Amino acid sequence: MARRKRSARKPAGSSPGTVMYIGRERTQAVQIKRIRYSPDGFEDLTSVGIAECKPPGDGEAVTWFNVEGIHDTKILESLGEAFGIHSLVLEDIGNTGQRPKLEDFDSYIFVTLKMITYDQKKRSLASEHVSLILGDRYVLSLQEDPGDVFEQVRGRIRTGKGRIRRCGADYLLFSLMDAVVDYYFEVLEQLSDDLEDLEQEVVERPTPETLRSVHVLKREMILLRRSVWPVREAVNMLVRDESNLVTDGTRLFFRDLYDHTIQVIDTVETFRDILSGLLDVYLSSISNRMNEIMKVLTIMSSIFIPLTFIVGVYGMNFKYMPELEWELGYSVTWLVMIVIAVGLLAVFRRRGWM
Amino acid sequence: MARRKRSARKPAGSSPGTVMYIGRERTQAVQIKRIRYSPDGFEDLTSVGIAECKPPGDGEAVTWFNVEGIHDTKILESLGEAFGIHSLVLEDIGNTGQRPKLEDFDSYIFVTLKMITYDQKKRSLASEHVSLILGDRYVLSLQEDPGDVFEQVRGRIRTGKGRIRRCGADYLLFSLMDAVVDYYFEVLEQLSDDLEDLEQEVVERPTPETLRSVHVLKREMILLRRSVWPVREAVNMLVRDESNLVTDGTRLFFRDLYDHTIQVIDTVETFRDILSGLLDVYLSSISNRMNEIMKVLTIMSSIFIPLTFIVGVYGMNFKYMPELEWELGYSVTWLVMIVIAVGLLAVFRRRGWM
Amino acid sequence: MARRKRSARKPAGSSPGTVMYIGRERTQAVQIKRIRYSPDGFEDLTSVGIAECKPPGDGEAVTWFNVEGIHDTKILESLGEAFGIHSLVLEDIGNTGQRPKLEDFDSYIFVTLKMITYDQKKRSLASEHVSLILGDRYVLSLQEDPGDVFEQVRGRIRTGKGRIRRCGADYLLFSLMDAVVDYYFEVLEQLSDDLEDLEQEVVERPTPETLRSVHVLKREMILLRRSVWPVREAVNMLVRDESNLVTDGTRLFFRDLYDHTIQVIDTVETFRDILSGLLDVYLSSISNRMNEIMKVLTIMSSIFIPLTFIVGVYGMNFKYMPELEWELGYSVTWLVMIVIAVGLLAVFRRRGWM
Amino acid sequence: MARRKRSARKPAGSSPGTVMYIGRERTQAVQIKRIRYSPDGFEDLTSVGIAECKPPGDGEAVTWFNVEGIHDTKILESLGEAFGIHSLVLEDIGNTGQRPKLEDFDSYIFVTLKMITYDQKKRSLASEHVSLILGDRYVLSLQEDPGDVFEQVRGRIRTGKGRIRRCGADYLLFSLMDAVVDYYFEVLEQLSDDLEDLEQEVVERPTPETLRSVHVLKREMILLRRSVWPVREAVNMLVRDESNLVTDGTRLFFRDLYDHTIQVIDTVETFRDILSGLLDVYLSSISNRMNEIMKVLTIMSSIFIPLTFIVGVYGMNFKYMPELEWELGYSVTWLVMIVIAVGLLAVFRRRGWM
Amino acid sequence: MARRKRSARKPAGSSPGTVMYIGRERTQAVQIKRIRYSPDGFEDLTSVGIAECKPPGDGEAVTWFNVEGIHDTKILESLGEAFGIHSLVLEDIGNTGQRPKLEDFDSYIFVTLKMITYDQKKRSLASEHVSLILGDRYVLSLQEDPGDVFEQVRGRIRTGKGRIRRCGADYLLFSLMDAVVDYYFEVLEQLSDDLEDLEQEVVERPTPETLRSVHVLKREMILLRRSVWPVREAVNMLVRDESNLVTDGTRLFFRDLYDHTIQVIDTVETFRDILSGLLDVYLSSISNRMNEIMKVLTIMSSIFIPLTFIVGVYGMNFKYMPELEWELGYSVTWLVMIVIAVGLLAVFRRRGWM
Repeated sequence: MARRKRSARKPAGSSPGTVMYIGRERTQAVQIKRIRYSPDGFEDLTSVGIAECKPPGDGEAVTWFNVEGIHDTKILESLGEAFGIHSLVLEDIGNTGQRPKLEDFDSYIFVTLKMITYDQKKRSLASEHVSLILGDRYVLSLQEDPGDVFEQVRGRIRTGKGRIRRCGADYLLFSLMDAVVDYYFEVLEQLSDDLEDLEQEVVERPTPETLRSVHVLKREMILLRRSVWPVREAVNMLVRDESNLVTDGTRLFFRDLYDHTIQVIDTVETFRDILSGLLDVYLSSISNRMNEIMKVLTIMSSIFIPLTFIVGVYGMNFKYMPELEWELGYSVTWLVMIVIAVGLLAVFRRRGWM
Repeated sequence: MARRKRSARKPAGSSPGTVMYIGRERTQAVQIKRIRYSPDGFEDLTSVGIAECKPPGDGEAVTWFNVEGIHDTKILESLGEAFGIHSLVLEDIGNTGQRPKLEDFDSYIFVTLKMITYDQKKRSLASEHVSLILGDRYVLSLQEDPGDVFEQVRGRIRTGKGRIRRCGADYLLFSLMDAVVDYYFEVLEQLSDDLEDLEQEVVERPTPETLRSVHVLKREMILLRRSVWPVREAVNMLVRDESNLVTDGTRLFFRDLYDHTIQVIDTVETFRDILSGLLDVYLSSISNRMNEIMKVLTIMSSIFIPLTFIVGVYGMNFKYMPELEWELGYSVTWLVMIVIAVGLLAVFRRRGWM
Repeated sequence: MARRKRSARKPAGSSPGTVMYIGRERTQAVQIKRIRYSPDGFEDLTSVGIAECKPPGDGEAVTWFNVEGIHDTKILESLGEAFGIHSLVLEDIGNTGQRPKLEDFDSYIFVTLKMITYDQKKRSLASEHVSLILGDRYVLSLQEDPGDVFEQVRGRIRTGKGRIRRCGADYLLFSLMDAVVDYYFEVLEQLSDDLEDLEQEVVERPTPETLRSVHVLKREMILLRRSVWPVREAVNMLVRDESNLVTDGTRLFFRDLYDHTIQVIDTVETFRDILSGLLDVYLSSISNRMNEIMKVLTIMSSIFIPLTFIVGVYGMNFKYMPELEWELGYSVTWLVMIVIAVGLLAVFRRRGWM
Repeated sequence: MARRKRSARKPAGSSPGTVMYIGRERTQAVQIKRIRYSPDGFEDLTSVGIAECKPPGDGEAVTWFNVEGIHDTKILESLGEAFGIHSLVLEDIGNTGQRPKLEDFDSYIFVTLKMITYDQKKRSLASEHVSLILGDRYVLSLQEDPGDVFEQVRGRIRTGKGRIRRCGADYLLFSLMDAVVDYYFEVLEQLSDDLEDLEQEVVERPTPETLRSVHVLKREMILLRRSVWPVREAVNMLVRDESNLVTDGTRLFFRDLYDHTIQVIDTVETFRDILSGLLDVYLSSISNRMNEIMKVLTIMSSIFIPLTFIVGVYGMNFKYMPELEWELGYSVTWLVMIVIAVGLLAVFRRRGWM
Repeated sequence: MARRKRSARKPAGSSPGTVMYIGRERTQAVQIKRIRYSPDGFEDLTSVGIAECKPPGDGEAVTWFNVEGIHDTKILESLGEAFGIHSLVLEDIGNTGQRPKLEDFDSYIFVTLKMITYDQKKRSLASEHVSLILGDRYVLSLQEDPGDVFEQVRGRIRTGKGRIRRCGADYLLFSLMDAVVDYYFEVLEQLSDDLEDLEQEVVERPTPETLRSVHVLKREMILLRRSVWPVREAVNMLVRDESNLVTDGTRLFFRDLYDHTIQVIDTVETFRDILSGLLDVYLSSISNRMNEIMKVLTIMSSIFIPLTFIVGVYGMNFKYMPELEWELGYSVTWLVMIVIAVGLLAVFRRRGWM
């Protein structure tokens, strides 16, 4: 996440409001999908030309333009002109490093979010920049790549399941944001699995590799948090806002979404707390193991060093060493050494070192 | 707590407002209890059909429907229709992972809480999802399993003790929430016992097992906190709210309940503080023990290594070693060695190592 | 503090508003003192019957009822009836685990506080539950045991010193709360003494016992904080409140009291900060000592182990070892060993280990 | 950063509102640049006299005075007189230690910021004090040295690119502030590179030098944070302020700038979090390495110390040692020693030490 | 700071509003200075009697009474009577342990601050209690001892420099508060010097003494913070307050002072952050050194212990040891030992231990 963002910066000092793509280089053609629906039916075009992208006329059905690819600034500019979008908004749409936010421009509402995916093998998060514009009877959604979490929303429009076809464009906006936030739960669940694995690893057989994993997960959590916190604020503005574009009925759904956002944040904070705790446990485990090692060393040394001294004594070559001449000298020496060894062992056992 | 919640997630992208059970699988039949009471008497049915569940008619007594089991979505849907409950609320009722909250829908108030129990043997918390709906002269309560903390409330209704039969449905709502929060104190008391045991263990004979217990208790505390914090906010809304469903007399009781919630949160935070302190003490204890071990090793080595060197000297086989011929050589060597040993012991004692 | 509170819990699920004593068991008779005073004189009865406890009639002097003992629920109930006190308040009066708070019931104001004492020998805090009720021309004070910090207030009433006899019951309430908060300063001073002792101990000769003391003091601080924080809020309500029972003149004094409360909290936080710092210093001291020990071990071992090796070489029994035959062999060996020892010592000195 | 600021302090007690230069000594002549522009054209003078510095007359074009050097108090005073600037503002302009802030004096708005540059070789930040004054159709910018981040703004005025020539002086103020904040991103990117290098270093081959770098970077982060936080507040005042000097159209751009400021702060906090985590990883790495070292010592000692004892036994010179006479004595001794060594190795392997 | 304050406590339970001196014992006579000034001139008396201390009459010039010594309660009481000061204020003036604050009594404003000085040799802060009262055309300042930071203000009055003689008493109050806060910067600069010294010490040659210094400086910082934080709030009240005693022109200056206070607080927090970081660096340094020591021990032991074993083998006295008879036995043994030593050194070098 961090590493990719590095090249994703607008050249310092460039004119504000310049439409510009800032992000990983992409070359594929930009695809625009259009779905038009009413309670009675729907029309689904998987690829429309830029000329056909314009706000629906009076009396027309709710229309959802889904732009897959934001690296073609010409398309962004055409859209900006067709829908009357401020150049600052176009700049935000093209900047994949943009922080989630919501801005209300009376005639339209601009929301930008991060779609998050988790690569469980590499233990790393990836985020995709998603922009949503709610206008009069239309929603314009823009994302970096084809493939998204919106497939189920499309499915519900096609089958007419749920209330989506009966409601306006504001409910479509809600459905899209809800799909993004809902996916956060999936990511959190995968993270939770990894966290539990790590927890077990730390307690049972911590290695330096474990530490690295804790650190990496912790950093990913910091970055996840940055993507999720501002969403809460943005959704809250939709709940409290007096915009004409959002009906009271849909506002209830945004309240529910707000609730989910809080739950996501809560979980992220809980994970951070647990990860911090894991580091403490890790450090303690290492200290414990050091204690084990030192005990072995101390016991071995403390027992054999004095004995080695004793045998050294009788290895001396002095002319006059009476003990050497005694017949029982050797046996008594062994006896003394055994007594010393057993005594020391008893002391260590009493201290609870063995 | 954490582990169970894992499977308790709604499939991402499903239509919002879909009534769905999300939680541990259950198969038992759902039981509905109905208690109807007035100052003069009461009627207590331990099992009523879903058809009999509907808001009381004009002039009827206060009625409490207690639904034991939320895994049967058909029952939830029937209740939703009979009582006019929003589909988003039904979704929250069926989702055991839902965070505590309160929502006021003018014609009814929706509250959801967690009943917490503590398994002192496993040192783990379990939570049960409880939903309460206060309408005009009725309370609808829904919980995951039979068996709850509401038995005393039922007792008070039956015996007519206290003011419960003289008050309205709002007081019943208060009584149920109060019973849940009151039980938190019981859980905290059990946790407090375990905490004191741990405290003593850490100070007196810390083992790696102790560390694990501290970590587990700390994590349980993080999760407990998540269940309790939002309750405060929910109760506060009842205290400040201008809802017609709650009378001023009952509002005083909710103020009292708010107070208790604060006290619970306070205690949880205190426990967390103490647990953090325990970890520091644990780490220090380990360091202290390491010091003890190292001292023994150092004293043993420092005394015997020089002596071993000396006896080694006189074990050499040089032809010309005058000391070896001296008659007092052996005795003087012993003397020197004793002086060295005593001197080193004195040094160590002065340093406070013995 | 923590330990005693354990049995001080109301049975879960009992009817709210039930008057009940929750605390350490007591059996002594409850004593009620009554002081009635006006600018011109005073009447002081050390023991009045429960029948004489009722709000003063019109035109009567300011009256202070001081109830010593809250374990007799019958007396609490009689007082509740005589003074028209809400049953929830009576419940709070009887519950020694109740958190400090203030509640304004229009016709009377209810305040509850903790009197704190510090046992410097055991390094433990004890708290006594105090409840104060301010009504029209009367103050009702209730405490767990005879003996309190109010003696000076009584003295001022008797001698007519200060403004107390010239002011109303609101000033009496202030005087009592002020006496309680003032005593906190005394407790903090004693704690400060202990803290400075500990600080010196940690720096000069830390033992595991020191660590235990730091931990105990830290925990007591957490509990003290819990008793003091809510007082601030309670006093602030008196400063801002528009109650008729408190005159503007007295409000100035409450503003002063608020100030003192802040100062107490400030000091408690400072102590906590210093205690946290002490733990760090303690850990560092232990590490430092470990370093000292290891240096000794390393120096001793590093010097004598190579020398022992050398003397071992010439203790070998090979037939053909030319050095053994040299006349200077022994002396040269000594020379070499001295050079090695001095060289190693020089290295260690240059590294700053000696 | 810290070190330079040391001499940058106004003499304590000097009269407030005294114009005074506080900062690193400088002697070069102060250069004043003037750019005057309108949608149709522009006039660019690289050096104007102090006499020509005055607010533009009625109907005149937008004028930008860029003063390069604030160490000449006479020039500051002349400007103050010509533009009617309060002496307190002049004092703040001349004080390089001044914290970023915004003050609205109705007839003009005063903003002060820090231009930050990062010296990647020395891993240290440098800040330059920049003051901006927005008046009626003019902006006055003052900075410590020639050379700045404003070159692109000048370029846009000269080429007429973007909207700058079509907008008023408020948009010029925005452009200058935007250029400063934009440059923060560049600095953060360089810091991010260093941070990733450090992260790798800590995990792969930590040295005491690494620790020093972490500490230095952490301190620079604290200081960076101090320069950036107050900017947020200042920009927010421009967004919310009702000043006549800022048009609604430009306010949208300030809202965008506010957004960028938040993003900068967010990133700084993230870096701080990661740096704190690095320290923990560093400490753990050291402990891990210690464990490795101790294992080697313990294994070596534990195996050879008992063996050395055994060979010492048969080096003793007792007259009566039967083993010495056995023909297989020597071989059996070797066998026993090999068995012991292999046994100990097996024990260590089973413990996972090898 | 902490230690001195210990005896500076009012006896618990004493009547509130009792004028009393609480602080270090002092016996010198109290000196009162009076300066009266107008734009045209000034009158400076270095010692006036208590009888001459009274608010200036109508049309009289601005007067500044500077009382040096607050240990004479009679003088405090006389002043209280002459200027109509509330007894609670007099109590605060006499209590050197009083926290900084501002109180507005309509007819006068009461401010109390701490003058801070830093003894760089002892590395300890000292604070002096200063009280300021702003009334109609007069300022009353009270301090513990003669000698203060106000000398420059006196100088400006005498020389007529700056605006002080042209402004009212509110500007005088500002000047005095500004002088106090300005001096904080001087103290912070001295602390900053010490901090940099410490930083270098920790990194280059940390000793237990360094740790003690870090701890002491950290504690002083906690206490400094307590003196400075409340000043911010007090000054802010002057900026926002609608008091008639402060003119709008002067309010601008208070806004500037507020700014300075924020800067002081900012710096104190930064120092605290850096000090916390230092402790971590210190702990890491110690661990690093331990690693160094252990490496030496391990290398020495691991090389010589096996060699000593080998020479021990050939020191055995078995009858049948064929190697002893070989002519090359001795030389081969040396060869083997050299190979082992070089091999082990190579291993250690590859591990990066040397």
